[in-house]
Amino acid sequence: MAGEYCSVGRFHRVGVQILRRATGRFQAKGHGREGMVEQAQVERLQELIREEDREALLEMFRDLHPADAAERLAALRRPREVARCIEILGIPHSMNVFEFVPFEIQKETLNHLPRPLLVELISVMSPDDRADLVEELDEQFQDRLLSLLMQAERQNILKLITYPEGTAGAYMTTGYALLHADLPIRVALDQLRLQAPKKETIYYSYVVDHARHLIGFVSLRELIMGRPDARVEEVMNKKVISVRADEDIENVAKTMTRYDFLAIPVVDAEDRLLGIITYDDIYDVMTEEATEDMYFLANLDADEKISTALPRSVKLRVPWLLVNLCTALLAAYTVSRFSHTISQFIVLASLMPVVAGLGGNAGTQALTVVVRALALGEIKVKRNWPVLIKQIGVGFFSGLVCGMVMAAIAYLWYGNLWLSLILWMAMTANMIIAGFFGAMVPITLRKLKLDPALGSSVFVTMATDVGGFFTFLGLASIFLHYILGQ
Amino acid sequence: MAGEYCSVGRFHRVGVQILRRATGRFQAKGHGREGMVEQAQVERLQELIREEDREALLEMFRDLHPADAAERLAALRRPREVARCIEILGIPHSMNVFEFVPFEIQKETLNHLPRPLLVELISVMSPDDRADLVEELDEQFQDRLLSLLMQAERQNILKLITYPEGTAGAYMTTGYALLHADLPIRVALDQLRLQAPKKETIYYSYVVDHARHLIGFVSLRELIMGRPDARVEEVMNKKVISVRADEDIENVAKTMTRYDFLAIPVVDAEDRLLGIITYDDIYDVMTEEATEDMYFLANLDADEKISTALPRSVKLRVPWLLVNLCTALLAAYTVSRFSHTISQFIVLASLMPVVAGLGGNAGTQALTVVVRALALGEIKVKRNWPVLIKQIGVGFFSGLVCGMVMAAIAYLWYGNLWLSLILWMAMTANMIIAGFFGAMVPITLRKLKLDPALGSSVFVTMATDVGGFFTFLGLASIFLHYILGQ
Repeated sequence: MAGEYCSVGRFHRVGVQILRRATGRFQAKGHGREGMVEQAQVERLQELIREEDREALLEMFRDLHPADAAERLAALRRPREVARCIEILGIPHSMNVFEFVPFEIQKETLNHLPRPLLVELISVMSPDDRADLVEELDEQFQDRLLSLLMQAERQNILKLITYPEGTAGAYMTTGYALLHADLPIRVALDQLRLQAPKKETIYYSYVVDHARHLIGFVSLRELIMGRPDARVEEVMNKKVISVRADEDIENVAKTMTRYDFLAIPVVDAEDRLLGIITYDDIYDVMTEEATEDMYFLANLDADEKISTALPRSVKLRVPWLLVNLCTALLAAYTVSRFSHTISQFIVLASLMPVVAGLGGNAGTQALTVVVRALALGEIKVKRNWPVLIKQIGVGFFSGLVCGMVMAAIAYLWYGNLWLSLILWMAMTANMIIAGFFGAMVPITLRKLKLDPALGSSVFVTMATDVGGFFTFLGLASIFLHYILGQ
Repeated sequence: MAGEYCSVGRFHRVGVQILRRATGRFQAKGHGREGMVEQAQVERLQELIREEDREALLEMFRDLHPADAAERLAALRRPREVARCIEILGIPHSMNVFEFVPFEIQKETLNHLPRPLLVELISVMSPDDRADLVEELDEQFQDRLLSLLMQAERQNILKLITYPEGTAGAYMTTGYALLHADLPIRVALDQLRLQAPKKETIYYSYVVDHARHLIGFVSLRELIMGRPDARVEEVMNKKVISVRADEDIENVAKTMTRYDFLAIPVVDAEDRLLGIITYDDIYDVMTEEATEDMYFLANLDADEKISTALPRSVKLRVPWLLVNLCTALLAAYTVSRFSHTISQFIVLASLMPVVAGLGGNAGTQALTVVVRALALGEIKVKRNWPVLIKQIGVGFFSGLVCGMVMAAIAYLWYGNLWLSLILWMAMTANMIIAGFFGAMVPITLRKLKLDPALGSSVFVTMATDVGGFFTFLGLASIFLHYILGQ
């Protein structure tokens, strides 16, 4: 009996998981080594919420890092429960955790919070997270929420949500530490002590003139190491590397990782300080950028996640498959032009996919190396024909080697020398095509200010498919007499 | 004349670039927004080194961020010149810059430094960078270098280089700040002030007991905010999240990004503090990991770079292409079994690549989504059949849609209803195969403790090629009578 009961329970759980994945609503972010939350933990949490056992909840959350606690909250099934939990704990105790809760769930939860709690929550969130969240709300709810806030906060949010997605402005926080240039370090440290609770980081402080022009920055380390009576001006770094608010966040990430920065200031066109971007945001950006590049190379929409519901996945993938269908039709048309040759020597039909397939593989190799180098800024946009020449060269030599191997195998299989020679030539030629298009397509896309990865594999595969069929069947047509003569 | 001279100069420069790329020795890392170094700047630098103009060199380097200065040094053609520049500037002035110089060039440069300078340089480098560098030297040079160092440093290096590549130990630095639990904060801050110049970061300090067991950590922010007479123990965090020295650096990166850590402590099996890993190392790890996943999906060796010399690129790519050749042969064999059917109705030869090709694309889509989700820890290794079912489902519905479109096109093209029906069925079936293998292969590789991306696309393409040809030609053979009857 116990066994039976247990397995029913397990099936129920799996069912819940499928449901959760299918709706995509409550999938925890969870890229931690902790892995997923155990069902027993979720049930315990639900129980405590139902019983409104504040003490036990506080204890449970005190024992966890906010990121882990957030994962448990996210594993609850209903946003109403998350809201209830926040209500029981109170904002000061649930704030840290809530900031780690996945975005989608944060959004849903807001709908279920009582108004005063909602205002309190939004008021204490860090400016960048808050702006991201408010931006995602539907307009009516957004208006209602903004009307409840104090004017200063309202303006801060309105300012931050005006920056387009993917720009530095959209990622920055206004919670940076500010110091005056002529303060003695001793006083500066006292000021930082006061500013600390409200700032995202106090490890870098920024110095501005009367018009908010950024004139320097100083690290807490430098302040700590400096003479207490020296002035901030004397120890601050005057050559500040900053980014403009409209700069692509990808470039910001490149700059920060290049210089190993913990934070970078964001300025407007007049070099006035607007905010800062911190290393933890860059962690996220780097993950997203890598995902995007991989997805684009595989002809996937950047919006798809593992938790995306099935119908939406189909909707996101089919357009790309149809684009691919068009290029496949071109390949089919190429083959159809050689129907006569194939019908004369049917072996060609079984060997032609080898030529096209290996070319496709070689093309993907060249493409991936070049796309990655472009993403990391390892090659210039201008005067990059050495890259092109090298990829063509690699294609040529790889083609010679692989073509020879294939020619030998075909000879053992069919004992037809002419056929083997043609295979060798066609494979070498197609790998040259692979190298050329693999390098040329992403570089051209970048020159056109498009993402070098986006759709590039469709073009490259088209080139190697059409190229492979055309060279192989074309050569076979020319030398058909010799092939058949053997 | 001037124009002519100019263009010769330009060709010379391009030639140099090709040479540099081909040898792969002096390619600057340069993933910054600054892009590549201008030739004029390099020539100016060479001139100053030749003239041993210390003042001008100091000025040039003072105006640049060390990362930018390092890029200029890296753009010099000879390691001898880099060494000469360091000699002229002296270690204290060139140290910061040298740590940003790409690894390959650091290595070569050491060979050209006079012995006392070499010892000074190695002594002042940060422990983790130094260990990485020493590890790469050939054994003879390594011994010579170690014999020149003081014993403490020698032991530190020897300890660090014993950790295998890719583990936390290999990335950690021993330059962490240490505090005693019972110090008043006031005194702790004084101690940090003294420790600061020699530590990688003082933003986190670690607290150990008499046996070096890690018992807590405290951020500089918490120290600054604390009462000066409170003891470290009172403000420190006792629940320390740490990693073991033998832990995979990928997991360390996941942990750090999950919790938004600036640094994480590394401990041995007995929980004794060995070192720390800082956020800037994680920037590098994240970049490398993303590259590796993309490369593996494209059947590329992780060692290949855009600057890799042509012969080496060929050597790295050909083995993968030959693996692909084996799978392509399997597909060719499949087709050859249906020679008779194809010869009866040659149109099949031109349509079969469409079925295989679209299946391949759908397989790559499923594969990429699953590989990325595994890399980000978004799916579990166990009980992941909901993932499998979803991918199969997406394949089925995508296949229905794309197959219908293709069937319609084929009908317009050939007016053969049976052919269109078979196309539809075969494409749907092959996309189910694509979804199944796209999800199954990476999950299985992960279960076998292998990298889920490594070689997985070869398997998936094999499945969709063989599957596509088999279902399409198989169905065509069965219904050949009806097809021909139309």
